[in-house]
Amino acid sequence: MPLPPSGFRLSGVHCGIKTRAGAEDIALIVSDGPSVAAGVYTQNLFRAAPVDLDRQRTPSPRIRAVVSNAGNANACTGEQGMRDAAQMTRLVSQSCGVDAEDVLVMSTGVIGEPMPMEKIACGIAMAANRLGTDESAFLSAARGLTTTDRSHKVVERNVDVAGGRRVAIAGMAKGAGMIGPRMATMLGVLLTDAALEPDAAQSILAEAVDESFNAISVEGHTSTNDTVLLLASGHGSDRPLAGADLDAFREGLASACVELAKMIPDDGEGATHLIAIDVRGCRTREDAKKIARTVAASPLVKCAITGGGPYWGRIVSAAGYAGVPFDPSGVSVSINGFAMFESGQPKPFDSAAASRSIRSERETRITLTFREGSAATRFWTSDLTVAYVTFNADYKT
Amino acid sequence: MPLPPSGFRLSGVHCGIKTRAGAEDIALIVSDGPSVAAGVYTQNLFRAAPVDLDRQRTPSPRIRAVVSNAGNANACTGEQGMRDAAQMTRLVSQSCGVDAEDVLVMSTGVIGEPMPMEKIACGIAMAANRLGTDESAFLSAARGLTTTDRSHKVVERNVDVAGGRRVAIAGMAKGAGMIGPRMATMLGVLLTDAALEPDAAQSILAEAVDESFNAISVEGHTSTNDTVLLLASGHGSDRPLAGADLDAFREGLASACVELAKMIPDDGEGATHLIAIDVRGCRTREDAKKIARTVAASPLVKCAITGGGPYWGRIVSAAGYAGVPFDPSGVSVSINGFAMFESGQPKPFDSAAASRSIRSERETRITLTFREGSAATRFWTSDLTVAYVTFNADYKT
Repeated sequence: MPLPPSGFRLSGVHCGIKTRAGAEDIALIVSDGPSVAAGVYTQNLFRAAPVDLDRQRTPSPRIRAVVSNAGNANACTGEQGMRDAAQMTRLVSQSCGVDAEDVLVMSTGVIGEPMPMEKIACGIAMAANRLGTDESAFLSAARGLTTTDRSHKVVERNVDVAGGRRVAIAGMAKGAGMIGPRMATMLGVLLTDAALEPDAAQSILAEAVDESFNAISVEGHTSTNDTVLLLASGHGSDRPLAGADLDAFREGLASACVELAKMIPDDGEGATHLIAIDVRGCRTREDAKKIARTVAASPLVKCAITGGGPYWGRIVSAAGYAGVPFDPSGVSVSINGFAMFESGQPKPFDSAAASRSIRSERETRITLTFREGSAATRFWTSDLTVAYVTFNADYKT
Repeated sequence: MPLPPSGFRLSGVHCGIKTRAGAEDIALIVSDGPSVAAGVYTQNLFRAAPVDLDRQRTPSPRIRAVVSNAGNANACTGEQGMRDAAQMTRLVSQSCGVDAEDVLVMSTGVIGEPMPMEKIACGIAMAANRLGTDESAFLSAARGLTTTDRSHKVVERNVDVAGGRRVAIAGMAKGAGMIGPRMATMLGVLLTDAALEPDAAQSILAEAVDESFNAISVEGHTSTNDTVLLLASGHGSDRPLAGADLDAFREGLASACVELAKMIPDDGEGATHLIAIDVRGCRTREDAKKIARTVAASPLVKCAITGGGPYWGRIVSAAGYAGVPFDPSGVSVSINGFAMFESGQPKPFDSAAASRSIRSERETRITLTFREGSAATRFWTSDLTVAYVTFNADYKT
């Protein structure tokens, strides 16, 4: 269980947006002094109000707090939505004695409904009174991000830097489906006590997100609210990391992001399998990602894994319409190590054993190899189950 | 029930690829003389052998027959697959006394398995002996195309042309899911007794397909085998249609294709709703189609309709990641006539009544209006149900 890196206090409280008594729906993170902050945001043209606010404020050398609410996305809410997001920063300002301009906001939940600002005001005041620096404070905040998640998602890393020192990274994320009104989206916060330059923080975060949070999908529906933030307090190092130290930090952050990101499809709504898709031998990494994303989005591929079916035909045909040019006779496919299609030809394999392997393991590994170049990528998704459909078809929510 | 247009004889027989006794799995269409033929084919890079064969042979002024089998797609079958497709044309040549080079082939079914050529040889010989010109011959052939379809799909049109004459169009199609190994793909054949120039036939068919078979999806998975053919015997008109006659024919063919194409998502695997998506006010038709296709592919939108949920937030957010630039404040959305989102703002509506309307009607009409230009399109898809998942997850087939 991660401890908050030095320089941060956290809390998570229940203010009544979630109906279940006691379920945290407000998370608050406060930095003792100015933190360097970076952010990566949704590509959706319908950006929620808090996303618009944070985009204007990052990268920054002086962020003091992040406030998050679960249950209402503050998306497609027009001018009032922008006023409500700004009001959340003022409420944090009043409760925590920081400038409102130095506060970031995240929201997740129902789209198109006005924010319950009275509950939120009360929640922020409570959260400010319960800030802590122990594990349970970190976990309460992490639970405050979640919506349809079965559990909170947290990660930690330590990175050795020059002078025998060690900096800490602790992260939290949420996301089970991609979008409301089932109160879902993808949010992530990475905290570190390392000192970073704002531009370095921004580029390192963007890189890490590209290989982690941007390499996952549940049903491929990009939310209006997706946000990943990195806050660096600087308490753990004397001056901004550089050279080999910065490289070590980059590696630590990347691996923390991958671990956190994989938890999202693993906890995808109704998911019974985490599917890891390796695409190799492409001309460019963009080509590899396009193919991986297309295979990951195919309901037929996902349903095959749900049922334990080693149906490589669904995989190669999905690759075939990804919009990437390649020579079909150079394509090979394996599932869980069973080679099924080699150089464009079916290859005899033990279908019953492959099926048993898919059904008995939580993670299914699909490998697609092309003969176009040396670019590769890895992507993760969930399978598609009856529970996903009943969950998202239920009209009462 | 359509009659075969003059100049064509048809049959459908059971040769044993489908397991259910008597279920037609071979369809044969023979033209009394040389027919003009046009074809539109899958964009998938993994093209099945019969698609490669037909692509080389169309447009053509002299096609004599089309043979189709259901149950095996002859896709991803390498050199042997090409030999088997060519062998099917030779079998038709021997049984029907036409040149093998003048025969087209369609296949649908399992991917990556060798063709059961003995059964197919027997089926083609039987089919050649049962060719007929009545309604039941047409329906047998139409059933011979089907796989997971709940029923055959046929259409007819008559087009008045100069000199008080009338030409006939009769069409058949199949398609319930997009791909094997659940024996599915999209095939269509349009027959007419009109006389057409090959190039005119090709361009009219391509246009009609663009607004019909290319404007539908079940789960967005482009098959290796998709094929739509147009055969024109020329028996119903003295010379190739031109001018106003050609325009009337174009319109008749387009409307026949739309009627036939809509039957496919309406009969989508497990579907309980046909969803019609109108996208208006875009800069280009390509933009409109991209948005329509993205909304149609969203499992969250599809599940909302399954459950009768008027969740416009899922629709606008899907539009927002379609990759088309637009001004979010110019977007409006209605479902079944209920305006829910107007000029980028939520609009109060009777949610219970909207929900009742979705649940009580087979077709759901989603309208998305932008303020970018005057281009528009219409697209059809199925909802996503528990039955779809159980059907496609079942590993025994």
